[in-house]
Amino acid sequence: MDLNEAKSIVKSNLTEARYEHTLRVASTAVHLASLYNQPADVKKKIELAAIFHDYAKYWSVEELRRWIQQSRLPKDLLDYHHELWHGPVASLLIKYQYGIDDQDIQMAIRYHTTGRANMSVFEMLLYLADYIEPGRSFPGIEEVRQMANQDLVVASWMVSKNTLEFLLSKGSTLYPDSIHAYNDLTRRKMEVVN
Amino acid sequence: MDLNEAKSIVKSNLTEARYEHTLRVASTAVHLASLYNQPADVKKKIELAAIFHDYAKYWSVEELRRWIQQSRLPKDLLDYHHELWHGPVASLLIKYQYGIDDQDIQMAIRYHTTGRANMSVFEMLLYLADYIEPGRSFPGIEEVRQMANQDLVVASWMVSKNTLEFLLSKGSTLYPDSIHAYNDLTRRKMEVVN
Repeated sequence: MDLNEAKSIVKSNLTEARYEHTLRVASTAVHLASLYNQPADVKKKIELAAIFHDYAKYWSVEELRRWIQQSRLPKDLLDYHHELWHGPVASLLIKYQYGIDDQDIQMAIRYHTTGRANMSVFEMLLYLADYIEPGRSFPGIEEVRQMANQDLVVASWMVSKNTLEFLLSKGSTLYPDSIHAYNDLTRRKMEVVN
Repeated sequence: MDLNEAKSIVKSNLTEARYEHTLRVASTAVHLASLYNQPADVKKKIELAAIFHDYAKYWSVEELRRWIQQSRLPKDLLDYHHELWHGPVASLLIKYQYGIDDQDIQMAIRYHTTGRANMSVFEMLLYLADYIEPGRSFPGIEEVRQMANQDLVVASWMVSKNTLEFLLSKGSTLYPDSIHAYNDLTRRKMEVVN
């Protein structure tokens, strides 16, 4: 799909602020892809993934729930906060509504909120870009931005750790994939460091 | 098994400091059992569980690993820190070495470090006593001690949350049962509060 067409579709489904966030995630993801020496086709794909990553963000909880119930998405999502649902559902919608049948794009969108064990480079690019895009301000974000220039695994680990700490501080439940992402990145980080 | 015999067995397997911790956990657990209106036989059982809870604490990593490999204990324990191994192994040893075949005691010892989803009252008594015994000093422990006088589920939830926060702050991996304990107690706490 043409990137302008994608932007136009997504724009009409988001608030203006969320659409601007989306554009910043897209340019951050492309920047990271360059930094980590990804070829041109990957840069185009990551931009498309970023444009669609929040596509289902404003779908109603009822619609998201119905998609999870009627698809092959894991049903345990329904036991956790509905904020976790828009990524997995969007990963299906881009195929069913727009014929985007690329595994990398689908996986990156599906796991952009929680992460998972064994994230690919492509998935980490979106996961990290969504966290560090210039409009974000989280505690500790500057350290993550600096690490994003040095090591994709360590920076992604910091995102997963900060996210779990934030959720714990609120007393929220933790989705298993978020833990699997953190544990896996902790182990991969050890390999980077050692 | 007679409590004095149990103490004598355990004492010879622990350092003096760890044995004193054990005695404090036992008296704290019995105190909590009274507070939560447990009958006399439960008080005796929780004391026995507490006496044996750290029985395998100073077994060598190699011995603990062998027990996990050669038993029905979950093998994924071996992918996590060996600090998590002594509880599960002790829950087997008390049966094989001393014939203690009580499910409540075995489960409480097995899960005293990580917790798990659906902990029983008996399991929570040991899990909480191990955390708040008077010799402990953790950040936030006074709040847990106060809550221990009011609500066993909420106090256990605080233990699981504090433990995860501590492990995250160190960058340690998180064993799935620790997360399941926290998520489950988060939900049970909601039911208490609402």
